[in-house]
Amino acid sequence: MNHLDVAKTPPMGWNSWDCYGASVREDEVRAHADYMAKNLKQYGWEYVVVDIQWSEPEASSTWYNTFYPLEMDEYSRLIPAENRFPSAKDGVGFKALGDYIHSLGLKFGIHIMRGIPRQAVHQNTAIKGTGKKAREIALNNISSWNSDMYGVNMDIPEGQLYYDSLIELYASWGVDFIKVDDIAYSILYGDAHKKEIAGIRQAIDKVGRPIVLSLSPGPAQLKNGTFFQENANMWRLTDDFWDHWDALVKMFDRTEEWAPFVRPGNWPDCDMLPLGHIGLRAHDGGGGDNWTRFTKDEQYLLMTLWTIFQSPLMYGGTLPDIDDFTLSLFTNEEVLDMYHNLVDRRQIYRDDNWIMWQAHSETDTYVAVFNVSDDPDCLPKSLVNKIKARQFRDLWAKEDSSFETALEVNSHGARLLKLKK
Amino acid sequence: MNHLDVAKTPPMGWNSWDCYGASVREDEVRAHADYMAKNLKQYGWEYVVVDIQWSEPEASSTWYNTFYPLEMDEYSRLIPAENRFPSAKDGVGFKALGDYIHSLGLKFGIHIMRGIPRQAVHQNTAIKGTGKKAREIALNNISSWNSDMYGVNMDIPEGQLYYDSLIELYASWGVDFIKVDDIAYSILYGDAHKKEIAGIRQAIDKVGRPIVLSLSPGPAQLKNGTFFQENANMWRLTDDFWDHWDALVKMFDRTEEWAPFVRPGNWPDCDMLPLGHIGLRAHDGGGGDNWTRFTKDEQYLLMTLWTIFQSPLMYGGTLPDIDDFTLSLFTNEEVLDMYHNLVDRRQIYRDDNWIMWQAHSETDTYVAVFNVSDDPDCLPKSLVNKIKARQFRDLWAKEDSSFETALEVNSHGARLLKLKK
Amino acid sequence: MNHLDVAKTPPMGWNSWDCYGASVREDEVRAHADYMAKNLKQYGWEYVVVDIQWSEPEASSTWYNTFYPLEMDEYSRLIPAENRFPSAKDGVGFKALGDYIHSLGLKFGIHIMRGIPRQAVHQNTAIKGTGKKAREIALNNISSWNSDMYGVNMDIPEGQLYYDSLIELYASWGVDFIKVDDIAYSILYGDAHKKEIAGIRQAIDKVGRPIVLSLSPGPAQLKNGTFFQENANMWRLTDDFWDHWDALVKMFDRTEEWAPFVRPGNWPDCDMLPLGHIGLRAHDGGGGDNWTRFTKDEQYLLMTLWTIFQSPLMYGGTLPDIDDFTLSLFTNEEVLDMYHNLVDRRQIYRDDNWIMWQAHSETDTYVAVFNVSDDPDCLPKSLVNKIKARQFRDLWAKEDSSFETALEVNSHGARLLKLKK
Amino acid sequence: MNHLDVAKTPPMGWNSWDCYGASVREDEVRAHADYMAKNLKQYGWEYVVVDIQWSEPEASSTWYNTFYPLEMDEYSRLIPAENRFPSAKDGVGFKALGDYIHSLGLKFGIHIMRGIPRQAVHQNTAIKGTGKKAREIALNNISSWNSDMYGVNMDIPEGQLYYDSLIELYASWGVDFIKVDDIAYSILYGDAHKKEIAGIRQAIDKVGRPIVLSLSPGPAQLKNGTFFQENANMWRLTDDFWDHWDALVKMFDRTEEWAPFVRPGNWPDCDMLPLGHIGLRAHDGGGGDNWTRFTKDEQYLLMTLWTIFQSPLMYGGTLPDIDDFTLSLFTNEEVLDMYHNLVDRRQIYRDDNWIMWQAHSETDTYVAVFNVSDDPDCLPKSLVNKIKARQFRDLWAKEDSSFETALEVNSHGARLLKLKK
Repeated sequence: MNHLDVAKTPPMGWNSWDCYGASVREDEVRAHADYMAKNLKQYGWEYVVVDIQWSEPEASSTWYNTFYPLEMDEYSRLIPAENRFPSAKDGVGFKALGDYIHSLGLKFGIHIMRGIPRQAVHQNTAIKGTGKKAREIALNNISSWNSDMYGVNMDIPEGQLYYDSLIELYASWGVDFIKVDDIAYSILYGDAHKKEIAGIRQAIDKVGRPIVLSLSPGPAQLKNGTFFQENANMWRLTDDFWDHWDALVKMFDRTEEWAPFVRPGNWPDCDMLPLGHIGLRAHDGGGGDNWTRFTKDEQYLLMTLWTIFQSPLMYGGTLPDIDDFTLSLFTNEEVLDMYHNLVDRRQIYRDDNWIMWQAHSETDTYVAVFNVSDDPDCLPKSLVNKIKARQFRDLWAKEDSSFETALEVNSHGARLLKLKK
Repeated sequence: MNHLDVAKTPPMGWNSWDCYGASVREDEVRAHADYMAKNLKQYGWEYVVVDIQWSEPEASSTWYNTFYPLEMDEYSRLIPAENRFPSAKDGVGFKALGDYIHSLGLKFGIHIMRGIPRQAVHQNTAIKGTGKKAREIALNNISSWNSDMYGVNMDIPEGQLYYDSLIELYASWGVDFIKVDDIAYSILYGDAHKKEIAGIRQAIDKVGRPIVLSLSPGPAQLKNGTFFQENANMWRLTDDFWDHWDALVKMFDRTEEWAPFVRPGNWPDCDMLPLGHIGLRAHDGGGGDNWTRFTKDEQYLLMTLWTIFQSPLMYGGTLPDIDDFTLSLFTNEEVLDMYHNLVDRRQIYRDDNWIMWQAHSETDTYVAVFNVSDDPDCLPKSLVNKIKARQFRDLWAKEDSSFETALEVNSHGARLLKLKK
Repeated sequence: MNHLDVAKTPPMGWNSWDCYGASVREDEVRAHADYMAKNLKQYGWEYVVVDIQWSEPEASSTWYNTFYPLEMDEYSRLIPAENRFPSAKDGVGFKALGDYIHSLGLKFGIHIMRGIPRQAVHQNTAIKGTGKKAREIALNNISSWNSDMYGVNMDIPEGQLYYDSLIELYASWGVDFIKVDDIAYSILYGDAHKKEIAGIRQAIDKVGRPIVLSLSPGPAQLKNGTFFQENANMWRLTDDFWDHWDALVKMFDRTEEWAPFVRPGNWPDCDMLPLGHIGLRAHDGGGGDNWTRFTKDEQYLLMTLWTIFQSPLMYGGTLPDIDDFTLSLFTNEEVLDMYHNLVDRRQIYRDDNWIMWQAHSETDTYVAVFNVSDDPDCLPKSLVNKIKARQFRDLWAKEDSSFETALEVNSHGARLLKLKK
Repeated sequence: MNHLDVAKTPPMGWNSWDCYGASVREDEVRAHADYMAKNLKQYGWEYVVVDIQWSEPEASSTWYNTFYPLEMDEYSRLIPAENRFPSAKDGVGFKALGDYIHSLGLKFGIHIMRGIPRQAVHQNTAIKGTGKKAREIALNNISSWNSDMYGVNMDIPEGQLYYDSLIELYASWGVDFIKVDDIAYSILYGDAHKKEIAGIRQAIDKVGRPIVLSLSPGPAQLKNGTFFQENANMWRLTDDFWDHWDALVKMFDRTEEWAPFVRPGNWPDCDMLPLGHIGLRAHDGGGGDNWTRFTKDEQYLLMTLWTIFQSPLMYGGTLPDIDDFTLSLFTNEEVLDMYHNLVDRRQIYRDDNWIMWQAHSETDTYVAVFNVSDDPDCLPKSLVNKIKARQFRDLWAKEDSSFETALEVNSHGARLLKLKK
């Protein structure tokens, strides 16, 4: 199976990080899956992803407990902390949770850190399929922001064996989506860990299960663009994204640069959507346990950029108590129809106030107009002239309109237009 | 006219730099045009490009005469030095030479430096279409390697007027191709001069003539990839390319990175082909007045990479005394058929010894196999398995073959294969 | 004469930049000299320095008139603009002004830009002492912030001849101090222009006149520290310094780093004192035509750092209308006694709130205590214990005191203490 | 005790790294101490230093055994591996070895890595003087080239307690010299680990024993120059130095830059002398178990630069089988007299072929002349003129001479001259 066939359209789902940091529990995951199955599945939302440190019994927020012991099996592989994931008892791992999610018609995702647990290395535990032990396959390289792992030496076959054993385990659990962290960009080492990426790719190809491979964190580097295309389905364009206008407006730079790398199976990733109710036990964003700090206009702008660029859509807020407005952003069928069917997309104009993107499906042309200035304004005539139609459908407003009347766009807001032929 | 319609297939032609540096003369240009019309035109070769400093009467090699006076018209625009281009007399400029080249069924190209002549600024001469003078539109920025020009201030309308007046003049001469230098990357300022690129784009769009816009020098930066796509037809991937294996092997990095930016009208540029007889009055390559220092195998490898990547092909050697081997590289109809018809192309494998590319036309699949090691070798089984066919056509050898027998590839050599279905 | 003998103590004087930018006029210079001779000379203040672009007739502020013609002699040397310096008429240059300043018992300084005028190069004018012309000794390198000059080629003897001719001219005018700009650090080229510095050093050594050599702008780089010591008397530690607390507090980094390079004849330079009335026709500081924006406490802190580090003291404000407080900063005999007699000095403590320096003269120990926090506070006991005396003289307050009572220091303020034995 | 009083003259001794890498054994250390006491002590050589990883039982060369267990006491402090240092048994540590070295009239030095053992952190062992455990004081930062340690958190008092406990232990062993590694410069983190340096300084000050503090590796950064002066006695100017001409000639850059930081108690460090017989079990230099690859001329040049700059002299070769030539380099009383008594020193000239240094003691002037070209040559007249004497003593040749005759200097050679008044 070619990895480009695994995610023919951009993945959509929910991820636990923006709400729970490193501390999500099984009941919370199940509650989100339940809601998704009932209310979002019909719109294409399907992945339920358990983010970082599900092996750490004491994890209680985004702040990692440095050097704390993790739950691990006999082959140096991390397994779910039973106190947080009760169904994992008796060596079942995530199998029971995965089964439950699948029973809802959804797909199951997990987060892992690149490498082998440091505790395995210092205890020199076994590696499946070889007499070599953890110490012998580990490399003295680390993540700067998490103390759990060492790198794996891919220059010896036992390094690949370790990753093979990981993916084999995850496949046995029914995992459909793996977000590998500390791998797409390392501040400390200034690049992607490419050998380990290639090894994980190979391990997934071997196991045969259609697993989406998502690489973090960003900023991924453009020089690795084709490498990412050959090895992964998603890769992060920036460091963690939170609900600040500054971070949102910078995404225009990165999406412009990465647009030529978007294609079926390859979806450069603008990161989770910090919308709705977030920060319950996650502190990184700085907003506390609260509703997104983005204005409604900024949320339209965000969703317009993410969808016309075809970023994966991974919701970061809570689902059980989601509000109508947030829900409306995820269930607009005309927007999602565009999102699933584009064949090209690119920025066609940018100045200090206005940004425009244009995209095509096999049948239609779409234009997105972003007002990044601090004042509401009408799209200037010279920019209207760049649009090769006079009539259009406003996809968020769900109404037909024309350029006979001026196109007003709120400050920090956007319009997403489907052109009439 | 959309600029992407101007060069629907990658431009092919001859450029005077690798032979004559800054010093080419009209008789030499005509002689190359004559040869091309007779022997290469039928294969798609069509551009005849006069490279840098055709306004400098004393130019005699690649070494610029720093701060020397240039020939200039009343509107601060450089014009051909009459002692080198006799047909330019009486204010005719390059019109006569352009007409001659057109009469052969070929197209005419010129090189210009970004900016306005420093001599215009210090003499404070006129700008067409405005009362403002040269001093008022110039910016204190320079090329580090040539002393002819200052930058143009695009933040005032008169800056655009100056570029408009340039392109208007060139269009009146019948120019079909403009190579703008000191613009795609500046060592001194660390980026492209984007405002001036956009201004030149606008000036060409206004004049309406289908002129290919080629930007130099490299290395163009990936972050500007979509900007280049929106504004130019070609842009250089590296600094000047000469006949050294080290430079050739580095081109694999750059082509891999830039492959996603290739599309009709956009042809990232691997630079001129320093093949055949070069260095007559050009010293930069270091090889003197001599035949290319590339081995035949390296030449096959070079042509294979340039064609499967779809780089423009601009021959740098002499034409009147071209040898049969060099000519054979430019006239292989099966290779050129691939070159003109690809719809995608990318590197699919790389290690220290082997590099593989794969490309598709609407109907066919092509694989290029490069042996970058210092020994001849057969393509390893594991790499043969990456190729989804057992039978193929070897395009350089012009023979059918199969993977039943081992595929030998010379050191620094390549095979270009069209797969059988 | 060894250049270390020229400025045995740090130079003190007045410079026209902070008041007048590039536009000071002769009457203004004379008025400042008059005041200095009457009121400051007895305290050691002696240099009167005419800053940049005294050759430009139209200069009216800090904003340079790009590419404007300058007044120049037959040997490609800039001379004073007569409309601004009337005594310069009849080819007298600055001789008359220099004579006047000397008649007051003061010393005369001028500013020059590294290099040869661009207008000389494009007009290809003569160089004294050689048949070579301006074009032949110029290099294609520039200042990024001023369009007057090109670099001089020091790899040919005629480059040195040009600088010799400059210094010869200045010596004939009676110049005692030369501030050479665009030479100690170039943003564009990332380093000092060391060959031209060495050439100017050589030219001054040849002419025999004791001329202080001051190099601008900063930040000078530490790796060039011994080179600067061997070639100059002063060199700038930062880019232009203005009356902002942020800039002032950063000077603690630079002075700490450069303290080991201070010795008689070598005075790393913290830049002019933007105190008193500044900005009359100078805009760079951003404060307009106004009194310094430093608080009194900040001014004490500044003067304490400058004097204990032994930076040159070049006043930037107006003299004729100077106020009593500013004057008191320049005429404190106990502070100046320390300033003239130190044999070592260094930072001995730094945290986020407190910085301490200690220095010695042959006979005494001095301690400076800086409160860089935003609140007034008493020096903590642990820091008091670093001071090896219980009694001291407070030099700004001019009173004896002891550590029996807490040493209060205002926010952004300083105390300068002479320890009792 | 002020740390500047500990090493009033530059430290001289022997270090085990260049011979034995990480693997030196007690018998070898004793044999070197014996030889030094008998043959070198009278010349000022006194430190015997056991380099890295004396806690690792399996260490056998320069190649570290990644993640191997180390011998450690109950307080998370590394102790000597008894199989390598038999006298360390019964918890004696290095006390017995130290006593032996002291009994010879010599001084004892050890190497340590910055930080706390990773094994202590993962086993969460005790810290002396606090209830906090290893995990609580460790930071997730590492050395890129050795896997033994984590950083220590100096922002909590327990971090200081740990370093206090280390130095207390070493003082109880009679340690006179500590070389702390992975602290003066980190490639991974781009700077010195300043907080840990300050903590070690404080710990030594508290313990009261006169211990020389030596910081590795380089390149130390000039911006930290005064910080190093305040906290250490020696700090490394470059990465490890081996017997290659390229490395030797680069030392001229670093010594020029650092000369202003040399003063009693502060001896910027050019690294060990890879002379004589080296590489017995050390592989980094690449020369194998062999005699130095420096020519005799290069060895004179090296010793001339090290002594006139007043670098510490730490011999890296074997002592028991030292040859007469190498010994002669270390026992030249006239050179050592200069070395011990200089009050200033600096480079006074440099071009592509010649470098000159000048230095003064209280009574004498010294000049070193280095021929860094590839040909023997006589010192040019213009450079002879920089020397303010006509008669001199040639310190290596031990003969009086004059500039009446040309001063020949071998290629890659040097002359060290004491000028006659």
